Amino acid sequence: MAQVKVFVTLKPTLLDAQGRVVQNALNSLGYAEVGQVRIGKLIEMEVSGEPAQIGERVREMCDKLLANPVIEDYRFVIDESAEVGQ
Amino acid sequence: MAQVKVFVTLKPTLLDAQGRVVQNALNSLGYAEVGQVRIGKLIEMEVSGEPAQIGERVREMCDKLLANPVIEDYRFVIDESAEVGQ
Repeated sequence: MAQVKVFVTLKPTLLDAQGRVVQNALNSLGYAEVGQVRIGKLIEMEVSGEPAQIGERVREMCDKLLANPVIEDYRFVIDESAEVGQ
Repeated sequence: MAQVKVFVTLKPTLLDAQGRVVQNALNSLGYAEVGQVRIGKLIEMEVSGEPAQIGERVREMCDKLLANPVIEDYRFVIDESAEVGQ
């Protein structure tokens, strides 16, 4: 059982309205040192199977469901040493 | 200028309804190898200032605005080598 972390982020050329709101809120709270803020998703999954195949399967999952390839980029890390649920 | 990545996740004891929906969707699509799915936030920020102080300030931001400490955990990494916007 591997622990997979998928990071989904808006493509850099797109305006991140939610991030802009958070940036303004932080600046208003006195954190003037905060510049651009961008907000993405972190998806943590337990995945079983042959270690060599997990990467390919996770890439498929990202393309089909987890990310919108038109507006989002994704990357993922697979931690095969994770003893999930044991 | 440092690049700070904040990872906000629901506390492990809480039911992640959104993650459950994604898990069911993946299983329905034929990815039976996917077990528990949990969904969190990834917040990427450009932060300026003295390197030694950034960690403390970011912790404050998390407690005040970026995470809800009642139901969420957070952790963050600071990449001081990031030449953001240069």
